[in-house]
Amino acid sequence: MDLKNQILQIAENAKEACPVLGGLNSRQKNRVLERMAQTLLKQSRTILKENKKDLEQAEKTGHPNAFLDRLRLTEETLKEMALGLQEVALLPDPVGEVSGLWTRPNGLQVGRMRIPLGVIGFIYESRPNVTVDAAGLCLKSGNAVILKGGSEAIRSNLVLTKSLQECLIQEGIPQGAVQTIPTTDREATAELLKLEEYIDLVIPRGGEGLIRMVTAQARMPVLKHYKGVCHIFVDQGADIPMAYQICMNAKIQRPGVCNAMETLLVHKETAKEFLPGMAHRLRQEGVEIRGCPATLKIIGKGKGIREAKEADWYEEYLDLILAVRVVGSLKEAVAHIHQYGSKHTEAIITRDYERAHEFLKSVDSSVVLVNASTRFNDGFQLGLGAEIGISTSKLHAFGPMGLNELTTTKFIVFGQGQVRS
Amino acid sequence: MDLKNQILQIAENAKEACPVLGGLNSRQKNRVLERMAQTLLKQSRTILKENKKDLEQAEKTGHPNAFLDRLRLTEETLKEMALGLQEVALLPDPVGEVSGLWTRPNGLQVGRMRIPLGVIGFIYESRPNVTVDAAGLCLKSGNAVILKGGSEAIRSNLVLTKSLQECLIQEGIPQGAVQTIPTTDREATAELLKLEEYIDLVIPRGGEGLIRMVTAQARMPVLKHYKGVCHIFVDQGADIPMAYQICMNAKIQRPGVCNAMETLLVHKETAKEFLPGMAHRLRQEGVEIRGCPATLKIIGKGKGIREAKEADWYEEYLDLILAVRVVGSLKEAVAHIHQYGSKHTEAIITRDYERAHEFLKSVDSSVVLVNASTRFNDGFQLGLGAEIGISTSKLHAFGPMGLNELTTTKFIVFGQGQVRS
Repeated sequence: MDLKNQILQIAENAKEACPVLGGLNSRQKNRVLERMAQTLLKQSRTILKENKKDLEQAEKTGHPNAFLDRLRLTEETLKEMALGLQEVALLPDPVGEVSGLWTRPNGLQVGRMRIPLGVIGFIYESRPNVTVDAAGLCLKSGNAVILKGGSEAIRSNLVLTKSLQECLIQEGIPQGAVQTIPTTDREATAELLKLEEYIDLVIPRGGEGLIRMVTAQARMPVLKHYKGVCHIFVDQGADIPMAYQICMNAKIQRPGVCNAMETLLVHKETAKEFLPGMAHRLRQEGVEIRGCPATLKIIGKGKGIREAKEADWYEEYLDLILAVRVVGSLKEAVAHIHQYGSKHTEAIITRDYERAHEFLKSVDSSVVLVNASTRFNDGFQLGLGAEIGISTSKLHAFGPMGLNELTTTKFIVFGQGQVRS
Repeated sequence: MDLKNQILQIAENAKEACPVLGGLNSRQKNRVLERMAQTLLKQSRTILKENKKDLEQAEKTGHPNAFLDRLRLTEETLKEMALGLQEVALLPDPVGEVSGLWTRPNGLQVGRMRIPLGVIGFIYESRPNVTVDAAGLCLKSGNAVILKGGSEAIRSNLVLTKSLQECLIQEGIPQGAVQTIPTTDREATAELLKLEEYIDLVIPRGGEGLIRMVTAQARMPVLKHYKGVCHIFVDQGADIPMAYQICMNAKIQRPGVCNAMETLLVHKETAKEFLPGMAHRLRQEGVEIRGCPATLKIIGKGKGIREAKEADWYEEYLDLILAVRVVGSLKEAVAHIHQYGSKHTEAIITRDYERAHEFLKSVDSSVVLVNASTRFNDGFQLGLGAEIGISTSKLHAFGPMGLNELTTTKFIVFGQGQVRS
C-alpha cells in the first residue's frame, strides 16, 4: 500500500471507531484505562527493549543529552505513565452532560449535550510518554486519536501503541481508537493534514518550527500556541519580597518551558528599590539580564548584564536569560505586553485593588494572574485535572486544555409536536 | 493607496478599536445601539436613495426578482433593522462574566472571564439588512467587525456603515469598530483572508460556493456550514397526524432555507400507514417526491413522483422537492444520516422513550430534535436571543451562534504570592 492510502486507511479506522467511542459509558472507559495501566507495567521489558533501540540510534546520530533524556523510558517513567492513566480514569467524564434544558415559550425544551469532537490528530516530538498521556485523555473524552510522534521515538511509540491496542481489543473497542502512524516518512504528516473530512482537530506540541509547519499545512482546525513570551509586571508599591519570590520561581524553576517568565516589567516608582535586589538574586542563579537603559542606570552594566535590543522584547529564551524593562505606568506595561507578547501568560504583582482588576481586564492573554507565578498556567495547576496542551488561539479554547476542551456540545430539543409559524 | 494596503489599513483600524470595545460596559454599548437605531430611521431618505441605485444597477444586469427582493430596502425594512438593534441592546451582555472562581488547594482562586474574540470578518451576499444585524451583534459582544457584502449592495452597505460610524464617533468609539470594505474588487476578500494576525474569526454567510471559497482562502478560523441536508425520521408507531404536521412544516414553510427538511426517512413498519397520506399532502402543496423503490411501491410513480438516484440523498434542494426513503430500523436511519447528512439538523418523530434517547445520543448533528420541526434550528427559536450564523464545524461552536459564541474565555487567577514547587 502506498503512503497516501496507508494514512487514509488509518483515518478511516479512526472515523469508524467514533460511534463506538461516543457510546461508551464512563465505567467502560475507566476499565480500559485501568487495563492499559496494568499492561504497560506487565509489558515493561518489551517496551524498554524497543525504547533502548531508539536510544541507541539517537545516540549514534549525535542527539544531545537533553534530547536523549526526553526520549528515555525507565521502569520509573512507565510507572508514572501508568499512574497518569489511572488519574485520568478518576477524572469526571465530560461526555453526555446536558447543560441548560431551558423551556421556550412554545414548550420546547432546549439543552446542550456534551459530545466528543471525533478524531484528533496529535503531532509531537520524540517523547514517548506523551503517546500514552494523549491516548488516555482522548479515550476518556470519547475521541479517536491518531498519533504522530518524532521519528527518533518510532519504535517506542509503536510498541506502546500495540500495548494500548491490545487493551482496546480485550474490551471490545476497535483498535482504530488509538493509532500511531507507523512510519518516519515526513510525507506522512503532510498526508494526514489534508484529511479534513476525517480529522476534526489537530493538536501539535513541540517547538515553534513544528507548530508553524503543522498550522501551515493543516486543512482542519489546529489548537496550539507558537510560543510563550510571558511577562511579570511589578507594580508601584508591590510587596517586594513577594515579587522576588514569584519572579525567581517564574524564571528559574524550569526555564525551558512555555510558562516561564521571559520579560520582567517594573514600574518606575518601584524600580530603584526593587531592581538591585532582583538583579543580585538573578545573577546568583546565573541568569543573564538584558535591560533597558533605565534598568542599566540602576543596576549598572557588568558580567551577565547587558543592554536589551529591540529583538529581546519578542524573544522566548527558554533559558536562563531575562529581559527587563522599566515602564512609566500600568498602561505602558499593558501596551508593552500587547505589542511584544504572545497571549500566553502574564502576571501582575501589586497591592492595589483597582490596578489588579485593571490588569486582569485589559491584558488579552490566555491566563492572567495577580500575585502568583506564571508557572501556574498548566491544566493540573489550574484544576482542570489534566492537560493536553495550551491554546493561545481564541477559538474553542484559550489557555490550558483539559478533557472538556476535547469535547463540544450539540443542541438537543424535546418537543411535543411543535412546528414553526 | 493600493488595494493590499487599503485592506491592511482597515484591519489595523479594527485591531486598534479592540481595546476600547473590550473595555465598554453594557450601558455604553446599549446607548450606541439605540443611537444607531434612531439614526437609521432619521437618515432613511439618504439610505433608500443609495439602495435605489444598487437596485437599478442590479435590475439592468438582469438579476432575478428573488435577488432584488433581498437587496431591496424600504421604510419598513429599515424599521425592522432599527428594531433588531434595539432587541440586541436588550440582550444580556456576555462580556466580563466570570464563571467558576474555584479555589485550588494552595489557595489560588481560578476563574474564567468571558472576553470578546477581537476582530471578526463577516462575508455575505447582497443583503444590506445583514450589514446592520452583524454590526449590532459584534458591537454588543465587544468585537470589531469588518464587513464584506455582495458587490451589488455596495452603495447600500457604504451608506449604512457611514450612518453606524457616525453614531460610534458621537459616542467616542473609534470608527474602526464597524467598517465595510469600500470596493467590489474580488481581490479585496482574498487580501482580507490573509490577515491572520489581525482577524480572529471569519464568518461567511451565503451559498455553498461562497463559503467554500472563503474556507479555502482563509488563514484564520472560519465558522460556517456548507449546507443543510436535514432529515426527519418517522419512527415505528409514531403519532401519524403529528408526523404529517411536522413534516409539512419542515418542508414547505420556507423551503429555501438551510433548516428545511430535504430527506424523509420512514420506518418500514409505519410506511404503509404513513406514506400515502404524506405523499398526498406533499403533492397538494406542489412538492416533488423522489422516493426509494420501497416508497414507490407504496405510493406509486406518477406526476411529481419519481425514483430517487444515489445523488438525491446528498442533495440540498432548497426547493419544493423531497427525497423519501424507507428504512428497516432506527439504526439504519442513523446510518443513513451519518453517510449522507451534513451535521446540520435532524429530527425523530416517535412515541418511544428509549428510541427518542437513542436518536438524540447517536445522531452527530448540531441540533437533534424529538417531535419538533427542523425549522427550529435558529438562534432566536432556541433561545439564544439572536443569531449570527449556524456552525456545523464542531470546534468553538456547533449549531446556531449567538452573542456568547462571539466571545471566548480567558483564565483569571487571584493569588497571595503563590509559587510553583
